[in-house]
Amino acid sequence: MSERGRLIVLSGPSGVGKGTVLARYLAGRERIKVSVSATTRAPRAGETDGVHYYYLTREQFEEKISSGGMLEWAQYNNQYYGTPRAPVEEALREGVDVVLEIEVQGGLQVKRAFPDAAMIFILPPSFQVLRQRLVGRGTEDGQSVEKRLRAAVEELRRAQEYDFLLVNDRIEDTVRELEAAVEAAHTITRRQQSLLTEVLQDAQTDSVTD
Amino acid sequence: MSERGRLIVLSGPSGVGKGTVLARYLAGRERIKVSVSATTRAPRAGETDGVHYYYLTREQFEEKISSGGMLEWAQYNNQYYGTPRAPVEEALREGVDVVLEIEVQGGLQVKRAFPDAAMIFILPPSFQVLRQRLVGRGTEDGQSVEKRLRAAVEELRRAQEYDFLLVNDRIEDTVRELEAAVEAAHTITRRQQSLLTEVLQDAQTDSVTD
Repeated sequence: MSERGRLIVLSGPSGVGKGTVLARYLAGRERIKVSVSATTRAPRAGETDGVHYYYLTREQFEEKISSGGMLEWAQYNNQYYGTPRAPVEEALREGVDVVLEIEVQGGLQVKRAFPDAAMIFILPPSFQVLRQRLVGRGTEDGQSVEKRLRAAVEELRRAQEYDFLLVNDRIEDTVRELEAAVEAAHTITRRQQSLLTEVLQDAQTDSVTD
Repeated sequence: MSERGRLIVLSGPSGVGKGTVLARYLAGRERIKVSVSATTRAPRAGETDGVHYYYLTREQFEEKISSGGMLEWAQYNNQYYGTPRAPVEEALREGVDVVLEIEVQGGLQVKRAFPDAAMIFILPPSFQVLRQRLVGRGTEDGQSVEKRLRAAVEELRRAQEYDFLLVNDRIEDTVRELEAAVEAAHTITRRQQSLLTEVLQDAQTDSVTD
């Protein structure tokens, strides 16, 4: 395969169900991988280096930032999190699609570095549904739910910088919409702008326009 | 079926091959129709009313314009051409998708009236290829080719107001891209803006944001 893989950025607030949508999307699909993030936080019980995260020291992480080795990065709770560039570029070169399931802040960094990335954001049907889902998980106390909802508002405020907004109401519909969005992403007008400009420049040098 | 049909606007310069792409797209597809335009020009030999065009008198056409009965219209060579609204609305109500294969000027009128329309523009791989295709048809004299190319430039200049720009290089690819664009059209960010606003307003009335 000489054709490059596609870079897919998938974002959405915590609790919106993007992990489930992504798992269903990936099922049975080949030549696609989900990028593994790097972090400076310590591995938790049951976590494996290179599977859940790449675990780096602060020095290693900062060195990677300064050498351009991170596609995107941010700090949360005084720890670094980010996407190492090399494995992503290697997969794309080999014609493998790469999914980055990352926060909006990182997603928009990737969009700047890779203007061709398919930018897909998953919305809840309503804010109340998002709250219900977070509460319903039962894994978070009230304070943590409120913190996640505040973060959700920040993410939703920047969602219009994405190409596609999918509403995760019925999961089968959302998965089908994700498929269509990935297939259609390279034809949206934003991505074709340079080609359009080229065709119009062609026309200018063509005798027809004078 | 209670679900409304989808309105698909397909445009692109004369000679780009949109008729062929559309015919392949429609083959074997159900619950979809191509809108028949209305015109004041006289029927040519072999043309049938209601199939090639709806043939109207100037008075009938102007009456339809003033009563809002035309989705879009324009004049070329001193004749009216346009899309009658009623058959389109009826089909959409019945859950049938409707394709409007129309010029950019009309397409953008439709976009204003139906902001939910899937706006798809077909580009040539280059301006030279467009010229070659028009000359290669052998159906037009040199003057007519130049006139069509000038019109093409005008259309290309407004193409960025469409949602998707498909390059018609290999027809099978273009048909596949058209399928994906139609499926993905309702999830592009422009179309989801009101929903996003709604979710953010939800959030504001929710206790979390104060």
